[in-house]
Amino acid sequence: MAEFDPTSHPHRRLNPLTNEYILVSPHRAKRPWLGQTEVLQPTNLPEYDPACYLCPGNTRSGGQANETFDHTFTFENDFAAVLPPPAPIAPIAPHPLLETEPVHGGCDVLIFHPRHDLTLSRLSLADIERIIEEWITIYHKRSSQEGIKYVQIFENKGAMMGCSNPHPHGQVWSLSAIPTLPATEFANLEKYAQSTVAPSNAPKGPQGRPCMLCEYAHVETRFAEDQGRVVFKNEHWVAVVPWWATWPFEILLLPYKRHISAISDLTAVEKTAFAEVLSQITIRYDNLFSCLFAYSMGIHQRPTASSDELAHLHLHFSPPLLRSATVRKFLVGFELMAEAQRDLTAEQAAARLRALDSKHFLS
Amino acid sequence: MAEFDPTSHPHRRLNPLTNEYILVSPHRAKRPWLGQTEVLQPTNLPEYDPACYLCPGNTRSGGQANETFDHTFTFENDFAAVLPPPAPIAPIAPHPLLETEPVHGGCDVLIFHPRHDLTLSRLSLADIERIIEEWITIYHKRSSQEGIKYVQIFENKGAMMGCSNPHPHGQVWSLSAIPTLPATEFANLEKYAQSTVAPSNAPKGPQGRPCMLCEYAHVETRFAEDQGRVVFKNEHWVAVVPWWATWPFEILLLPYKRHISAISDLTAVEKTAFAEVLSQITIRYDNLFSCLFAYSMGIHQRPTASSDELAHLHLHFSPPLLRSATVRKFLVGFELMAEAQRDLTAEQAAARLRALDSKHFLS
Ligand SMILES: O=P(O)(O)O[C@H]1O[C@H](CO)[C@@H](O)[C@H](O)[C@H]1O
Ligand SMILES: O=P(O)(O)O[C@H]1O[C@H](CO)[C@@H](O)[C@H](O)[C@H]1O
Repeated sequence: MAEFDPTSHPHRRLNPLTNEYILVSPHRAKRPWLGQTEVLQPTNLPEYDPACYLCPGNTRSGGQANETFDHTFTFENDFAAVLPPPAPIAPIAPHPLLETEPVHGGCDVLIFHPRHDLTLSRLSLADIERIIEEWITIYHKRSSQEGIKYVQIFENKGAMMGCSNPHPHGQVWSLSAIPTLPATEFANLEKYAQSTVAPSNAPKGPQGRPCMLCEYAHVETRFAEDQGRVVFKNEHWVAVVPWWATWPFEILLLPYKRHISAISDLTAVEKTAFAEVLSQITIRYDNLFSCLFAYSMGIHQRPTASSDELAHLHLHFSPPLLRSATVRKFLVGFELMAEAQRDLTAEQAAARLRALDSKHFLS
Repeated sequence: MAEFDPTSHPHRRLNPLTNEYILVSPHRAKRPWLGQTEVLQPTNLPEYDPACYLCPGNTRSGGQANETFDHTFTFENDFAAVLPPPAPIAPIAPHPLLETEPVHGGCDVLIFHPRHDLTLSRLSLADIERIIEEWITIYHKRSSQEGIKYVQIFENKGAMMGCSNPHPHGQVWSLSAIPTLPATEFANLEKYAQSTVAPSNAPKGPQGRPCMLCEYAHVETRFAEDQGRVVFKNEHWVAVVPWWATWPFEILLLPYKRHISAISDLTAVEKTAFAEVLSQITIRYDNLFSCLFAYSMGIHQRPTASSDELAHLHLHFSPPLLRSATVRKFLVGFELMAEAQRDLTAEQAAARLRALDSKHFLS
């Protein structure tokens, strides 16, 4: 029997955050691609676009005008997915299989920078630090609103990821309930903390409890520089293509030196290091296929500033491109009906991202 | 406080098959769409395309030639995601968080019809019955192979869903493990069977145990014809936009007259009724926006012909289009990081599909 070789033998890996398996079929990367190709995003946008509803001073579709701003600017989404309280009372379910739960909250749009033509990957570290500060401000503000149980910070980048405007911006949806995926992650982090795991030198969670993500980051940072799944590392943060990655060039970004539950707990140096690693990830993404790389990014952390859920701050980057600037991975068919499937190993993806230039291809 | 109105108040619904919530934000459908639009699929393809690797007699990229066939034709995928045994032995995990499980199996491609220009929606009922028979044949064949624990029949239709060839075809991936999503569904069906639910007149599972899907279908078919979530119903099958639908026009299709675990258990009349409902769903999908409607379809059933898992045969249709033939729903950002979100209620979607013509717009 052949010895196991992850780059040629199909296998499954477990995502301990969701308790879901991923089917890895690395030999599949060899098949020819005859399917849909994506439209390249233009790299020569104007610095200001009079038709853009996110440019400074312009009017949005809701009728309101943006301030003229120098750094970041936050406003309430004109088409929010959740609305402010009071929410109506839950109706009586006509059957136990038909239950409804009213939900309330608020949706913010955070413009990253006045310049229409820039992206996170092309902002200065100082500008990225300002975005981090703004995330912390929104997290605090929404956390303290009545009934808010969860604050989700995220960014959709690129038309391929449903983003309708290239002007650099992110969103924050705050809800009166903890959504499905973070709730699953919290449950699995809690389960890990309760299990008897062999002690390691990794940092521990509150009251010395084992933290799955502290342990995971500890394991990943032990591998040699030119091996393993680390894409970029600095004094406080590490970016890896996780063992259980679903998207071809998925990245998990987390602080690894101490247990940190939320962005509001970051020290000044940790914030500066955070800005650096955000810059490095997004630059390498753009450099991979010399394009403005599409992704969805989300921050997972303590649900609100005052919650006591066991959480370890981390960011997920889910980018769809697989082969080139115009050929993506489709998570369809088998993936929607059975289980996630990928065409290269996490180690292969990490090696490619690691080898890229740390300077942006457009600079 | 306002009375709860599902078509204007944001709310969450629970999917009891996966135990996941869906955020419903029906007021969001009003926002203007400025994002990516999709390319329309041509409706005037030739009946035979010499360059198509699925047309009768043509040569595939693997070098083999298709037979000349009159109805269906099945062959092994030239770029299979899983390979036949022997699979290598699982390596020792370097850490408990880095576990690997080798997997083996086989991948089949099933061409639905010799004609290059047709789709399920435009095939005769007799031709659809032949596809059902072929699914049963493959299910039996793969079920009896050494170590196979699960057989997933599915179809990706449309370039938007990663389908690289419009020639009507589906796939079957058979694995030595039960994948994540069906495993979750089996666990939730089992949990339901063990819970003490109020007895209803719904059919029961084996040994008189409660079957969640028998009960669910029973509830849905009790609503009046012009209400609720039923899209189409015949003597044996019902197609609903499920209470917990994620995709805008998602459909759950299942037999409701008796408990049926797998396609191999269908009687002759149940197969004929199955062909009719498959035809009706796909015709209505195409008629919705007068286009060849993209979707992923998957059959969930007893994992293999001989397994004793508690299962009730059902099909999921996951179509991305939301507003028109070229504007889709993106399940990105919040959806990838937190929880599925939809912009119209299941009832609104069902009413629209129900009202459509039962004759194909191209006929
Ligand atoms: O096998 P195909 O049709 O070439 O490929 C398609 O279906 C597969 C199974 O759902 C997916 O993994 C691929 O991403 C998709 O492009
Ligand atoms: O709010 P936007 O950017 O217009 O919309 C985008 O992000 C939302 C949140 O992830 C998604 O629900 C939408 O499908 C997507 O198009």
